[in-house]
Amino acid sequence: MKDINLHTYTIHFDDVEAQLAALLERTDFSTIFVLTDENTRAYCLPYLLTTLPEDTYYVNIQSGEVNKNIETCQIIWQSLLEQGADRLSLLINLGGGVIGDMGGFCASTYMRGIRFVQIPTTLLSQVDASVGSKLGIDFQQVKNIIGLFNDPLAVLIDPVFLTTLSRAELRSGFAETIKHALIYDADLWTGIQQITDVNAVADWADIIYRSVQIKRAVVQADRKEQGVRKILNFGHTIGHALESHFLTTDTPLLHGEAIAWGMYAEAHISHQQGSLDKNALDDIQAYLTKVYSDCRPSLWPLQSLLEYMRKDKKNKNQRISFSLLDGIGTCTPDQFMDEDLLSGMITELVA
Amino acid sequence: MKDINLHTYTIHFDDVEAQLAALLERTDFSTIFVLTDENTRAYCLPYLLTTLPEDTYYVNIQSGEVNKNIETCQIIWQSLLEQGADRLSLLINLGGGVIGDMGGFCASTYMRGIRFVQIPTTLLSQVDASVGSKLGIDFQQVKNIIGLFNDPLAVLIDPVFLTTLSRAELRSGFAETIKHALIYDADLWTGIQQITDVNAVADWADIIYRSVQIKRAVVQADRKEQGVRKILNFGHTIGHALESHFLTTDTPLLHGEAIAWGMYAEAHISHQQGSLDKNALDDIQAYLTKVYSDCRPSLWPLQSLLEYMRKDKKNKNQRISFSLLDGIGTCTPDQFMDEDLLSGMITELVA
Repeated sequence: MKDINLHTYTIHFDDVEAQLAALLERTDFSTIFVLTDENTRAYCLPYLLTTLPEDTYYVNIQSGEVNKNIETCQIIWQSLLEQGADRLSLLINLGGGVIGDMGGFCASTYMRGIRFVQIPTTLLSQVDASVGSKLGIDFQQVKNIIGLFNDPLAVLIDPVFLTTLSRAELRSGFAETIKHALIYDADLWTGIQQITDVNAVADWADIIYRSVQIKRAVVQADRKEQGVRKILNFGHTIGHALESHFLTTDTPLLHGEAIAWGMYAEAHISHQQGSLDKNALDDIQAYLTKVYSDCRPSLWPLQSLLEYMRKDKKNKNQRISFSLLDGIGTCTPDQFMDEDLLSGMITELVA
Repeated sequence: MKDINLHTYTIHFDDVEAQLAALLERTDFSTIFVLTDENTRAYCLPYLLTTLPEDTYYVNIQSGEVNKNIETCQIIWQSLLEQGADRLSLLINLGGGVIGDMGGFCASTYMRGIRFVQIPTTLLSQVDASVGSKLGIDFQQVKNIIGLFNDPLAVLIDPVFLTTLSRAELRSGFAETIKHALIYDADLWTGIQQITDVNAVADWADIIYRSVQIKRAVVQADRKEQGVRKILNFGHTIGHALESHFLTTDTPLLHGEAIAWGMYAEAHISHQQGSLDKNALDDIQAYLTKVYSDCRPSLWPLQSLLEYMRKDKKNKNQRISFSLLDGIGTCTPDQFMDEDLLSGMITELVA
């Protein structure tokens, strides 16, 4: 598949070993570090071991969104420091969104920035997190509140890693593809509605490629999220709040699961605001219910959700920001709502 | 005095109140935050209080290099978060290098970057730290090892704040002006040699302005320190090691004090390497000894210094990097030395 260029870097597809070998061949590094969690160390790293030089250093952290924090950053920085990483070192982030976002943030701030390569190993990070230069961590239960924009040296995407994922993880990543279709590509929406079980998808390559194309088109036009890029946040205002809330409970939601139900709710708001017609709303809600029924939130804790939404980075003058659908395949950002109206809509939704 | 432009921002001189009023007039902010330490809150903030809007938020941290760390960053981020700072907020960093470097880092990483203004209140930060977009913190006793490059919205420099400084602090800042003269401007070197007591300087404005001009010229040519900018590190390889070492003792050195003795040592190395003649070396060492005699390190702990120098960001392939003088007013970066040779020179120097 053809490479996709974005800002200063290239997103490569196909065989990860060959791509990594080529990259290490064409660029000089003093030392190479690989960041993994216990899962990617066990299941993904073996794909790279024959390609990585013998004197590669390995940094291993605990998996999970709860570890995407400043404490883990300190573990990573300390490993780099102790093993003598210098300005010519490379950090390879092998994992999902947590590894990519946090590893990229650590690389971008170690010695004011060393080079890093993203090798996303989940569907979610392949179609979303690894594309677009957003890096960072959670802080005080607020998602991605600390971070920066910075480009990796390259992104290497290979569907081979998806065989290491559970059905729940696949379905979580799939939510971002559904989002890309809903905000940008009515044809893709028609296509993916055939998929009702992510385990039945034989080949993800085309879906990933189209998803990355869409994300690239949006991000290229607005790197720092000052305008159109915000359409990528469809489903994320309520989705992030759901994710943050349930993260502190015994029944956490995966990111994509939260986003799926965030899209369900924000499609409802799009309709209530008059921009999305009833048929489209019904289609969206029916499809999301079919695919994500078994992770539907057991309750919608209104006050807690509002509290998280108040801290959303996109808010303005204390009003909560949404990106809302105008129809299938089109979306408008920067729609601000006050809390009373919003409370009413959420209450109505879950009644 | 004429403004100086650098990259995307402007460095303003003269009356800080007028400059701040103009800046707040021409730009919209949702909320304004001012970061101070206990000293700048008491002695510098009063200069701004009539200009700042009533609903300004104040964040106060403990002064000192020992607090330039990730723990204090978390205090700052948390204050921003709790007071509802959003992407349209402004952070004004009112203080010396610690406040400017750390406040700038926190602003640059809060919500992936909000705007910030540097108001340097020490001679050191006015002639050095506030110019050049380097931001960051210390980590594991290594100075500025975590950070990034980012531009402030503006820098406001007013010598009025220097009246709040002790003689030791003035002299600390003066070291960077001596450095600017030695690496770039033989005329300035001739001029400043008249100064043997910083308390006797009636008006710092011209010295600050010339220092900023020099730093601007160097930084403009090489923002990310890939070449010529490294000449600004003259005196800093050994100086940083001295500073780091004594920071952990009962007799810490101020930054400029450490740099003065770092320049003393690195002038010696410049001479030993054959690039600096004996007369120039004698002049430099005599002048530094005259001005900085009472903070001369009581010992030069070779092993500890080497340990810190091994972690210097500018090293390459385990060799320690220096920027060395070729004469008064000219300097060459990227001179790498192995530890044996260096050990010998330091031993000889302090014999």
